[in-house]
Amino acid sequence: MRETIDRLKEIVGPRGWITDPERLHGNLTEWRGTWVGKTPIMVSPTTTEEVSRILALCREARTAVVPQGGNTGLCGGAIPDVTGTQVLLSLSRMNRIRAVDAGDYSLVAEAGCVLADIQAAANACGRFFPLSLSSEGSCQIGGNLSTNAGGTNVLRYGTARDQVLGIEAVLPNGDVFRGLRSLRKDTAGYDLKHLFIGSEGTLGVITAASLRLYPRPENRQVALLALASAQQAVDLYADVRQRLADQLQAFELMSDRSLRHVCRHIPGSRLPLEGAHPWYVLVDSASPVDRIPFEERLMEVLESGLATDAVVTKNDAEQEQIWRLRHSISEAQKHEGASLKHDVSVPVGEVARFIAEAEAEVLRAIPGSRLVAFGHVGDGNVHFNVSQPKGMPADAFIAERERVAGIVYDVVEKYNGSFSAEHGVGVLKREALQRYRGDVEVGLMRTVKRVLDPDNLLNPGKVL
Amino acid sequence: MRETIDRLKEIVGPRGWITDPERLHGNLTEWRGTWVGKTPIMVSPTTTEEVSRILALCREARTAVVPQGGNTGLCGGAIPDVTGTQVLLSLSRMNRIRAVDAGDYSLVAEAGCVLADIQAAANACGRFFPLSLSSEGSCQIGGNLSTNAGGTNVLRYGTARDQVLGIEAVLPNGDVFRGLRSLRKDTAGYDLKHLFIGSEGTLGVITAASLRLYPRPENRQVALLALASAQQAVDLYADVRQRLADQLQAFELMSDRSLRHVCRHIPGSRLPLEGAHPWYVLVDSASPVDRIPFEERLMEVLESGLATDAVVTKNDAEQEQIWRLRHSISEAQKHEGASLKHDVSVPVGEVARFIAEAEAEVLRAIPGSRLVAFGHVGDGNVHFNVSQPKGMPADAFIAERERVAGIVYDVVEKYNGSFSAEHGVGVLKREALQRYRGDVEVGLMRTVKRVLDPDNLLNPGKVL
Repeated sequence: MRETIDRLKEIVGPRGWITDPERLHGNLTEWRGTWVGKTPIMVSPTTTEEVSRILALCREARTAVVPQGGNTGLCGGAIPDVTGTQVLLSLSRMNRIRAVDAGDYSLVAEAGCVLADIQAAANACGRFFPLSLSSEGSCQIGGNLSTNAGGTNVLRYGTARDQVLGIEAVLPNGDVFRGLRSLRKDTAGYDLKHLFIGSEGTLGVITAASLRLYPRPENRQVALLALASAQQAVDLYADVRQRLADQLQAFELMSDRSLRHVCRHIPGSRLPLEGAHPWYVLVDSASPVDRIPFEERLMEVLESGLATDAVVTKNDAEQEQIWRLRHSISEAQKHEGASLKHDVSVPVGEVARFIAEAEAEVLRAIPGSRLVAFGHVGDGNVHFNVSQPKGMPADAFIAERERVAGIVYDVVEKYNGSFSAEHGVGVLKREALQRYRGDVEVGLMRTVKRVLDPDNLLNPGKVL
Repeated sequence: MRETIDRLKEIVGPRGWITDPERLHGNLTEWRGTWVGKTPIMVSPTTTEEVSRILALCREARTAVVPQGGNTGLCGGAIPDVTGTQVLLSLSRMNRIRAVDAGDYSLVAEAGCVLADIQAAANACGRFFPLSLSSEGSCQIGGNLSTNAGGTNVLRYGTARDQVLGIEAVLPNGDVFRGLRSLRKDTAGYDLKHLFIGSEGTLGVITAASLRLYPRPENRQVALLALASAQQAVDLYADVRQRLADQLQAFELMSDRSLRHVCRHIPGSRLPLEGAHPWYVLVDSASPVDRIPFEERLMEVLESGLATDAVVTKNDAEQEQIWRLRHSISEAQKHEGASLKHDVSVPVGEVARFIAEAEAEVLRAIPGSRLVAFGHVGDGNVHFNVSQPKGMPADAFIAERERVAGIVYDVVEKYNGSFSAEHGVGVLKREALQRYRGDVEVGLMRTVKRVLDPDNLLNPGKVL
């Protein structure tokens, strides 16, 4: 091991490695503290060739490597295990934007670029990069792609995967896959980039990507609608999408309890609608083309009876206020005691039925549990979060984590959904993957992993 | 072989097979006649389970299988070889639309569904399925997906791959991959569907797909613009896309010669613009939202000096007339003698430079060659077609096919493009794949092929 470490230091040079455990604390700890790992060394290469030499050396030395971006993942996919034998490979110094091409509506970014910096580079040339997550100030594009991140713009622009025109990646044996083409159409053989996107660094290390840019959305308009039921949100979505088409940027469902928690715990929060309503929907629309008759469209919706009440924002400050309600739900929920969270998806049309059935099952198992459901209806993505019953000890509630997850995932499965909508598998959901994806599907994943990484040295123990 | 054939007949039943070579003529001949194959039997299963049994049996009997959809491909990917030993597997009887869900904006179609029937099913529920090709009346969705087909709506909606939510496919060993989920977000492990999309039936047989639907575009508006150069088209595209955003459905470049051929040979054709201009662009816009000020936008473009002249259509008949000019280019070119065709792509910003440089190189090799270039600028996809010099014997020109392709592809490569934009590889471009994609990329394709189909029995000799 000592010799391997010395050779790693040589590859990355004096500023490219850290061995001091104290200085590595942040990199070895998942940000909520659920996983804490150990490593003999963290290497931070600055070029694709250095990454290649690192992986080739580690393969030769039979040493495992764990790639890491901004370390904002929620499933433990970027944390080494506790043996202290896994090399941590940080991409954070590979952070150049190699090219921006406004005419081609594309840019090329290295894996370590912070998402917000990519958004800014697109903006600086009059374009728009749509991927947007709450961690965008620190997450890195390499991590976004390796987990196929979602976020708030998926309804309109798709997931991280959909933004990729080309990929450069280093294979477990050190070979460099040079697929960094910026092409909209390319049918020259198998499309291998999709192997690396979403495989959480287990099949190769993404070092750079060519990404799609879009016209900058302008004339943003936001409304908050009050609904009698979650099913109304599903029906409303189908209707509003037809009326607004691509102007529709987001369609966010929030339960009454979610927003009451926000108003109770987040200073300055206020619901802009009178009275009590079981559900709310945030509708966000934008277009570079002239302002569309958004308010008229929503009035038609109210007349159709699909919504009980609605308010359309009049300025940026009001828009900001409504989005802040949505973004504060997780923060507010912390003040209501322990919670169990489930990032799941179902077909869009099944969202309401799924929520009702999963809530009934969870209540049967743990009476008094309080559902804090919200999510991206247009993506079929529900954040099905459960707060502890009042008066129940937090530890006792947390101890039910696996049982509750099993209950929720079983309902997800019944609706042909996914136990992981946008957070990935990591170490957290490996067992769910085994359980809910068939033998053929998991077998095929294992086959692909085995043939690309026969010694299981690249991010071992993650996903599979 | 006789026993295998008997068992195949049993699996598909009396109406599910044909052995008579005369009745199989259409299935064994590529539609332009470039490839003609032989087969001992064509089987036409009606269920996924039958496909599974066919592949398992053929693997056991070490018999090769060639999957076929509508047989409209242009690269020979769906035609058996001439040995008469390869079983032809037609998906055409698997043609049910299993489900349509307007609220979910999705439908599930079996592989043998004709593309136009899928478009109609979407339309019948008030939605839109965007994939559109000239062969849409006979091509099948299984073939569209296995070749990742393009077409005229890629700029706005993406390629065939981008329309897929889930896939059901049979692996070379007969196992069924049941990935027919209709989810917008799913990060549960590797996204295996992308292995089957675009691999031309060499890794598995797609039997059904869950597909995205969209709001129906309405308020269609079409304009024809005259330009001084192809570079103006590239600059104009960047500008028009920002002005129209997602209303922009198509942006088609046509050379003066392309349209002169059309006006000369296609009865009833007429250019709606006065005078002679080197290049033309067709702009198509649509939106379910109210009519946008399309004409005003284009007038701004004319004032900016990026176009020389423009006409905006006033009704459906005029729209049809302009699109007919575009769609008649290939037909008209037939009247100008032999032609060599190249379906290539480059980054959008390089389209004009690519055309100029490739034309110069081809003219140097074969003086008097006449370039008939047209394509989808917004996709960087150029149909770089070359008509024979006047007076040169057609045979002599055709004999230059490989040399000219090499010249064109070398220029494509220089611009980081693809020698196959939307037609695939089949048998036609196998050597190009070896030559222009690096050893690592082709090696990885071979590795994936070998591990999924170790005996090389599924569509052997195609792609790789």
